Amino acid sequence: MSFTQSILEGNRLPLSRVLTQVENDSTEGRAALAELFLHTGKAHLIGVTGAPGTGKSSLVNQLTLHYRKEKKNKVAIIAVDPSSPFTGGAVLGDRVRMRDLSGDDGVFIRSMASRGSVGGLARKTAAFVQVFDAAGYEIIIIETVGAGQSEVDIARLAHTTVVVEAPGLGDEIQAIKAGILEIADVLVVNKADRPGVENTERALRSTLELAHPTKRIFRHHGRTVSVDEPDVDEILWLPPILKTISTEGTGIAELAEAIAKHAAHLRQSGDWTDRDRTRLRSELEALLRDELMSRFLGGIQQRDYEVVLERVIQRDISPYDAVRSLLNGKMS
Amino acid sequence: MSFTQSILEGNRLPLSRVLTQVENDSTEGRAALAELFLHTGKAHLIGVTGAPGTGKSSLVNQLTLHYRKEKKNKVAIIAVDPSSPFTGGAVLGDRVRMRDLSGDDGVFIRSMASRGSVGGLARKTAAFVQVFDAAGYEIIIIETVGAGQSEVDIARLAHTTVVVEAPGLGDEIQAIKAGILEIADVLVVNKADRPGVENTERALRSTLELAHPTKRIFRHHGRTVSVDEPDVDEILWLPPILKTISTEGTGIAELAEAIAKHAAHLRQSGDWTDRDRTRLRSELEALLRDELMSRFLGGIQQRDYEVVLERVIQRDISPYDAVRSLLNGKMS
Repeated sequence: MSFTQSILEGNRLPLSRVLTQVENDSTEGRAALAELFLHTGKAHLIGVTGAPGTGKSSLVNQLTLHYRKEKKNKVAIIAVDPSSPFTGGAVLGDRVRMRDLSGDDGVFIRSMASRGSVGGLARKTAAFVQVFDAAGYEIIIIETVGAGQSEVDIARLAHTTVVVEAPGLGDEIQAIKAGILEIADVLVVNKADRPGVENTERALRSTLELAHPTKRIFRHHGRTVSVDEPDVDEILWLPPILKTISTEGTGIAELAEAIAKHAAHLRQSGDWTDRDRTRLRSELEALLRDELMSRFLGGIQQRDYEVVLERVIQRDISPYDAVRSLLNGKMS
Repeated sequence: MSFTQSILEGNRLPLSRVLTQVENDSTEGRAALAELFLHTGKAHLIGVTGAPGTGKSSLVNQLTLHYRKEKKNKVAIIAVDPSSPFTGGAVLGDRVRMRDLSGDDGVFIRSMASRGSVGGLARKTAAFVQVFDAAGYEIIIIETVGAGQSEVDIARLAHTTVVVEAPGLGDEIQAIKAGILEIADVLVVNKADRPGVENTERALRSTLELAHPTKRIFRHHGRTVSVDEPDVDEILWLPPILKTISTEGTGIAELAEAIAKHAAHLRQSGDWTDRDRTRLRSELEALLRDELMSRFLGGIQQRDYEVVLERVIQRDISPYDAVRSLLNGKMS
């Protein structure tokens, strides 16, 4: 049995190995990914994002336990921490996670610390998703920390994005979340037994109204839709706000239900295919850029490149002119 | 007098216009930037970053007022908010800023909300820096919100990075800052009249020790250096921790002094030139990638591209194979 065949059949050891190859962007990793890709497109990708302190990791654990109760779906968790670019430090909550979920062969957990650029991180996450998808994980949870552009980029990978809040993290922090709220499909106020939960919910609701202005008429798949049409619910999704206490498992079933409902909505409205298409388009473009650059650099002398760079540093020519001279020297 | 000549001479109207052109990445913007670039390399670029609620904007205002007291240096402020990628919303503290600093011809403030990718944002910030540098702004402050990768990318532009903290923002938030602390040249605990300032300072100090392990021997410009060498202070910079109360102007002179000391350190150690070189190298690379992609796309039929993309979406070929077939069809 070949290496990729063994992954497709769900063996954990080669799966683990290919993830490392893919993370290192090795030749073997690329080759395996190209084969595995042909078997993707089945998984439901769920992004879970929120500031540190919201109890997001424990929520992901509970959700996973819920999915695994019926042993129907295999669940993969990719925990990404883009906020620690240098230390590549530990992803918070890892130890708790291992305690809750280890020993279940239907769960695979992989942490990814951020080394290198955000673009690189999002691309590796996308590659991990493909590997898990091909390996038969029907549910893939991408967990990210924070509320910056990097999280948004990673969330773009997901079919369903869950944004987690908690009471008492400060109004200033809420205020900045307007951007992330716009990508939320499901909102969760976790730690709902804490004081201030009503305030958090209220703040979320009003920010949400800002982020999703109630348009009476909007465009969908090229056609103009009015909110008064009878079938508008099929194409218009209003993110629900749910309350959970992840440490006690409260509200988890309702969360799973909301996520499933969103998946059904995506399929019905055609947005599922749209998100797939958008994701693959940008992946293709990123790969194309990398390959063009690497072919170009392979075709010129490193010394010529350095000479041009030196002229830029001396303010002798501008970077624009440097690019022009490099490309015209090489490609005409 | 030509357009760029007028900018070089410090006129505000054409400066304002070229910033808009550059932000829109127009042909005029590119042409002006190529000319202006030849006059850059003089400014001290100061990055100021910190979570919302740290009073960072007001600190930047006070620092600017301090620089302007002697009317020696012109100051430009670029306020970047990468955390609001969709709304492109208002940069916090803008109104206060205008009240404090408007009416001074030696100060130019420009906000930039994040639209598009992080890479794009960092690149536009870099272009803005070049415009201000050419226009004779000796001090350029790049203010960013948050602690994610995007802030790190933008901070990489700066010669001196100031990281702002404040008491009472929660330990969890402190914990996540390890990454950003590694790029800090100067640390500020603002709102130092608030309770908990000692805790914040202590937390910073211990995180700082993790981020900058006291190595006895390290490499610098290709040579091995021991911390016992008599001239080690010239090449080893230990980030100071300062306390400020920006609303009262307390500690601002000391902050300005620490920033000036760091600039002197950079020049003495040769790191100033190094940072310049690294910045221009990645700028050249980014431009080269864009140009390669745009030339490539210009040379193929949009329809051919779509056909290949469709095969990827159907899982008929992998993105890697798609890239290969696009490039071989085109460039052989």
